[in-house]
Amino acid sequence: MEKIKPRTLSGFMELLPQQQVIFDTMSRRLRDSFSLYGFTPLDMPLMEAAEILLAKGGGETEKQVYRVQKGDNDLVLRYELTASLAKYVALNFGRLTFPFRRYEIGKVYRGERAQRGRFREFYQADIDIIGDGVLDMINDAEIPSIIYRCFKSFGLERFVININNRKLLSGFFEITGVGAASTEVMRAVDKLDKIGAEKLAEVLTADLSIPQSTASEIISFVTYQGDPFEIIDKYKGMNGLFDDGANELGVVKQHLSGFGVPETHFKINLAIARGLDYYTGTVYETMMTGYPEVGSVCSGGRYDNLAEYYTDKKLPGVGISIGLTRLFFILQEQGLLNDEILTSPADVLIIPMTEDLSHAVSLATSMREEGLRVQIHSESKKFKTKLSYADKQGIPFVVFLGEDEINSGMITVKDMLDGAQTTASAGILTAGLREKVAVLRLKAPVRG
Amino acid sequence: MEKIKPRTLSGFMELLPQQQVIFDTMSRRLRDSFSLYGFTPLDMPLMEAAEILLAKGGGETEKQVYRVQKGDNDLVLRYELTASLAKYVALNFGRLTFPFRRYEIGKVYRGERAQRGRFREFYQADIDIIGDGVLDMINDAEIPSIIYRCFKSFGLERFVININNRKLLSGFFEITGVGAASTEVMRAVDKLDKIGAEKLAEVLTADLSIPQSTASEIISFVTYQGDPFEIIDKYKGMNGLFDDGANELGVVKQHLSGFGVPETHFKINLAIARGLDYYTGTVYETMMTGYPEVGSVCSGGRYDNLAEYYTDKKLPGVGISIGLTRLFFILQEQGLLNDEILTSPADVLIIPMTEDLSHAVSLATSMREEGLRVQIHSESKKFKTKLSYADKQGIPFVVFLGEDEINSGMITVKDMLDGAQTTASAGILTAGLREKVAVLRLKAPVRG
Repeated sequence: MEKIKPRTLSGFMELLPQQQVIFDTMSRRLRDSFSLYGFTPLDMPLMEAAEILLAKGGGETEKQVYRVQKGDNDLVLRYELTASLAKYVALNFGRLTFPFRRYEIGKVYRGERAQRGRFREFYQADIDIIGDGVLDMINDAEIPSIIYRCFKSFGLERFVININNRKLLSGFFEITGVGAASTEVMRAVDKLDKIGAEKLAEVLTADLSIPQSTASEIISFVTYQGDPFEIIDKYKGMNGLFDDGANELGVVKQHLSGFGVPETHFKINLAIARGLDYYTGTVYETMMTGYPEVGSVCSGGRYDNLAEYYTDKKLPGVGISIGLTRLFFILQEQGLLNDEILTSPADVLIIPMTEDLSHAVSLATSMREEGLRVQIHSESKKFKTKLSYADKQGIPFVVFLGEDEINSGMITVKDMLDGAQTTASAGILTAGLREKVAVLRLKAPVRG
Repeated sequence: MEKIKPRTLSGFMELLPQQQVIFDTMSRRLRDSFSLYGFTPLDMPLMEAAEILLAKGGGETEKQVYRVQKGDNDLVLRYELTASLAKYVALNFGRLTFPFRRYEIGKVYRGERAQRGRFREFYQADIDIIGDGVLDMINDAEIPSIIYRCFKSFGLERFVININNRKLLSGFFEITGVGAASTEVMRAVDKLDKIGAEKLAEVLTADLSIPQSTASEIISFVTYQGDPFEIIDKYKGMNGLFDDGANELGVVKQHLSGFGVPETHFKINLAIARGLDYYTGTVYETMMTGYPEVGSVCSGGRYDNLAEYYTDKKLPGVGISIGLTRLFFILQEQGLLNDEILTSPADVLIIPMTEDLSHAVSLATSMREEGLRVQIHSESKKFKTKLSYADKQGIPFVVFLGEDEINSGMITVKDMLDGAQTTASAGILTAGLREKVAVLRLKAPVRG
């Protein structure tokens, strides 16, 4: 038979078993973290009618979208999770309870140019809190706490959650007389991190025709080095929008410590704007310390109206999104994945040394009852090959079951990490292995 | 703005939050069960190049497949999990360790006719054990144990795992002189459950031109009511293939009890054939007792060669597949989902009764540190509305935090199930709630 060359599509992440376990561990820790804050899981279809997903329109989106043909149906693979959520909330409004907190960790599809580190199929992990009509600011204050817990649960230490408020920025632009170009100025400021203050001044004056002195004032404000509320206070009482933003930012700041976010891990950063017009209040960006080129690994913010394309109901919300596939890729590239984490498919490999397998089978069954992940290696292979099977997969414990062990009612376990061999009754050894495995399972998927 | 009518595609399951939690619980219990047997998780792309997924060809498949257009690429959404696994194993052969045990719980796509209970997007949960060249029969004996544990973990009690061997059947057909029409006879026998013995006799004699006496002999064999090994023994020594099948079935039977499968939950059923030509030895079908119309809810078997379209390597395997979306739908239809399971997004709802939220925030943080899932309800709503928020979502505990509680350092908890209110220090109450929630979390997603 002529063979077809096996290949995986470019831009589609396909992991080897040990990497997959690390990825899944990160995903599970996200679920656990989101759950602690009262978010319910949703798992939406990956495909929707084109008119639903493309309601928002926009050129770039339509170009990148994967279209699916099936009979007369015009279908589209989702390219982010928010449009489906909006549809879901509009469709099920009467059956949901608000504020509605949901998380979804799911695949999305974008036909971007193939490029290293750019994915066409990737996971997004989103949380959103949707209010019916209104949504209290305490929710905005809670979000950084969730981000903090998620990244800590991965084992990451060196990251900073940047927080700002777009009302504050818009109000400030009105105060300085550039309110008419607010969107453009916001976009320019958002690039400060990448282009620097000098280039920003150039963009503001040359491209947006803002007077030199105003440009300087804007740059002084967004790059203020002291306590940001010092400079915020200077502009208070001059503009309603600015004052609203200042108050909102104040509420967020006030509760961060109560929500368990230490000073070291957040920054009120007046230069953060998020390019998307979608956001209307609080905005978040999370940076990995020491990796500025990576950009934000978790972003989001407050928006006024989730589902305006599908319903007249006013549904304000606040949410964040983590690009999990990209984050995993970055951590792997930077050598930050923890290869000491238990990635083996089993905790224990039983190697039967007798023809009759019934003792091995019974032992495996009783160990599984105790929650140990057990595999029996009963293929006709050399003993050394079987040991190397455990070694290659990182299986931490190997049990030898020969005539001697069966006759004496004892079993021998080899600890593959330190090579030590122990002989004891099955019950005692199982209990000991459970404890050791429990410790191994606690290890974090990421270092640093 | 003109609104777009929100809708979900027909044949795409979209669950309300409480149903989703039950679905996810089933999915998680499958993962846990598969893990106990040493299977490693994989999560493959949902899309592949058309030539990869359609290597096997076949008319029905090609008709049902969703094709994706993106530039010049001819892409296909996967319609089952095995083709991608075959590609993966061929592609990564040198980096995998054999026997290779993997599970995958993932979505697949089939453009079937829209019909109640037929899904176009649905989850399959597959396990496969792939050998390099050979694979010991003990693996076939282990599979029913995994099926048993999976269904028990759901809370299901009334199901039977039917086991047979296709070598045995093929050998028997050769013995009875219908070997030339083996495939057709196998397909006819496979329908016995649905059509009954009388109709099967008709199909065998009229459609397949088998003599009346031979048809009777076949039907006597496949419907034998005593210990199947009694009738198997009568034909032993007459045909090599038959004897091989009989030995294999014997090995499987011999170890079932050691693997923890009680007599009540399996049946050596000589009428089970699995229509698919793919299987070459052991075959499995799992029936829910009392729901014959549902058919098999977990099927699989032994095959000779996983990846023959992509590699010359001989890779025999044994595996099973659970149609999780369909199973969930059936359980829901039959009223078998356990509505006593904890499906709320939070364990505890904190209702602050003061303007200052800082105590509520601190309490939420400390409870989350202890693993409780906590939400603060701080919207400007009436107290009654907040209680009803907890009630509607099934949140089991509500904490009231007013001036009195804050001043006295005590908190009051209302148990929403029995209405009892308790006041104590935060630490003591948190410990008590943890215990109660742990019990609630143990409940099975399915009744019966």
